[in-house]
Amino acid sequence: MQKVLMILCIVALLMSSYVYAADKAMAPSHGIAYPTGWQNWATIAVSHRTDNSTLSVIIGNDVAVNAARSGNTNPWPDGAVIGKVVWNDTQLSNWKAATAPGKFVHAEFMFKDAKKYIESYGWGWARWIGLEQQQPFEKGMNVCISCHTPVKKRDWVFTEPVSLPK
Amino acid sequence: MQKVLMILCIVALLMSSYVYAADKAMAPSHGIAYPTGWQNWATIAVSHRTDNSTLSVIIGNDVAVNAARSGNTNPWPDGAVIGKVVWNDTQLSNWKAATAPGKFVHAEFMFKDAKKYIESYGWGWARWIGLEQQQPFEKGMNVCISCHTPVKKRDWVFTEPVSLPK
Repeated sequence: MQKVLMILCIVALLMSSYVYAADKAMAPSHGIAYPTGWQNWATIAVSHRTDNSTLSVIIGNDVAVNAARSGNTNPWPDGAVIGKVVWNDTQLSNWKAATAPGKFVHAEFMFKDAKKYIESYGWGWARWIGLEQQQPFEKGMNVCISCHTPVKKRDWVFTEPVSLPK
Repeated sequence: MQKVLMILCIVALLMSSYVYAADKAMAPSHGIAYPTGWQNWATIAVSHRTDNSTLSVIIGNDVAVNAARSGNTNPWPDGAVIGKVVWNDTQLSNWKAATAPGKFVHAEFMFKDAKKYIESYGWGWARWIGLEQQQPFEKGMNVCISCHTPVKKRDWVFTEPVSLPK
């Protein structure tokens, strides 16, 4: 019986440390939970910024992708989550005239909820940095908002969703 | 009874014309069936070609995405389908230093099946052009293959899959 209890204790300890590791990886940014599974979200647009030499893919959850593809983006519907995944520029090894994604920079997200985020213009703004272990950005939503001010009349979103055949 | 038959005939006619339209939209390219649903496939990479001023997202079906993210790409496994969706460059309206996707050009695909496509180096090569009604490219797989020859030692694939946090 003692042995069984000891084994159970070890299992419990191992599980709690595993949960801790997972929690740490998924720590919230600005109080917003990490949007698991975004790596498989569909494309809303791509972008190449020549001012900071980065390439991005702009992705969305189902609500955001449906809104983007039906032109329902001003305002975006509650529940929409838009993600921008950013890499530093590099050149493709075998096609020098192609700029391709190099080092991963960060993944940043806008979470639409007009009521919940009324004080940050209807959006929750969050970012996670780093490839091996995603770390939350915690310098405040105003860092995001100030940069997005030029598009406040587009519901604060720069991205123009791509044209896609149906 | 005659009325019922007439209504059934009309419904059948409407359905057949609908199927015809769908078939037409989905006409095969180089004998390869249109890969429905690719608009929601996950990202493998992005690319900005300065030689022809196009932006692309490189996407894949589940087999291809799993292979890309586990480094299982030389050779890619049978069943992998890689897509490249291409747009002409434009500038983002509200961030002039960002190149963004403009007019849709085409969506092109590589279908891996080492045995089935043994004569075209293990891949079926296909392309569909046009936004409103996707039309198949039918000028022969050699058009694709000749351009991909520099990467024949990379299983004919230019794309270097992006780094993503897990």
